[in-house]
Amino acid sequence: MSIELDRIDHVGVAVADMEAAIALYEGKLGMPLVHRETIAEHGIDAALLEVGDGHVELLFPIEEDTSVGRFIARQGQGLHHVAYAVENIEAALADLANEGLELIDAEPRVGIRNSRAAFVHHDSATGVLTELVEPASG
Amino acid sequence: MSIELDRIDHVGVAVADMEAAIALYEGKLGMPLVHRETIAEHGIDAALLEVGDGHVELLFPIEEDTSVGRFIARQGQGLHHVAYAVENIEAALADLANEGLELIDAEPRVGIRNSRAAFVHHDSATGVLTELVEPASG
Repeated sequence: MSIELDRIDHVGVAVADMEAAIALYEGKLGMPLVHRETIAEHGIDAALLEVGDGHVELLFPIEEDTSVGRFIARQGQGLHHVAYAVENIEAALADLANEGLELIDAEPRVGIRNSRAAFVHHDSATGVLTELVEPASG
Repeated sequence: MSIELDRIDHVGVAVADMEAAIALYEGKLGMPLVHRETIAEHGIDAALLEVGDGHVELLFPIEEDTSVGRFIARQGQGLHHVAYAVENIEAALADLANEGLELIDAEPRVGIRNSRAAFVHHDSATGVLTELVEPASG
């Protein structure tokens, strides 16, 4: 075991109304909105709101038949995943695979803000959909 | 609006097997176990595992009829809440009440590791049970 997770990079929150959610996090919780992006491949609109060295990532499904759309249909809006920052995502994924964790993404894919990201299956992680992210600037 | 959330302090994870969960987070995800505590008032065993300047807080219900016990009965183990660190919890709670958010705890209570903590109702926060925490050392 040699993996080192640097920090909590973000929590992902599935939301049913993006503008209302931004109004809450930016306007009432005081987190600056630093990025918005439509990720067509995953059928979501995403927004990043900064808090310390981490973020809240709001996820709104622009299509129902998506991971986030099905999540909201099943249990309503709320906490969707947690992401940890790593310096070398290939090495981290190799460590986790070696430890027997089930990876959703065996290879990193392009994530928000040109990060590189991969998910670990929630069944391997105490029911928590768990993401590793290597920031673009890292 | 004047609240300032310093950082993501922790994510709270409801777990069905504390030792298995610690084995995962400490042994496979490389997070040092830095604290364990039974919080009898809330009927839970809690464990803090360090990641960067934040933590994963594992929550195991030692009684079924608790918030965490009902959570697991309803939807299985998984992400339970997110907590943000603040420097002055009374001021932060006053700000949020002033913004119309529904507080579960109008006054801070003693949280894990002698922190002072209070929860915001998930209905006021995009379905996310949201905690403010003023660390004991802060």
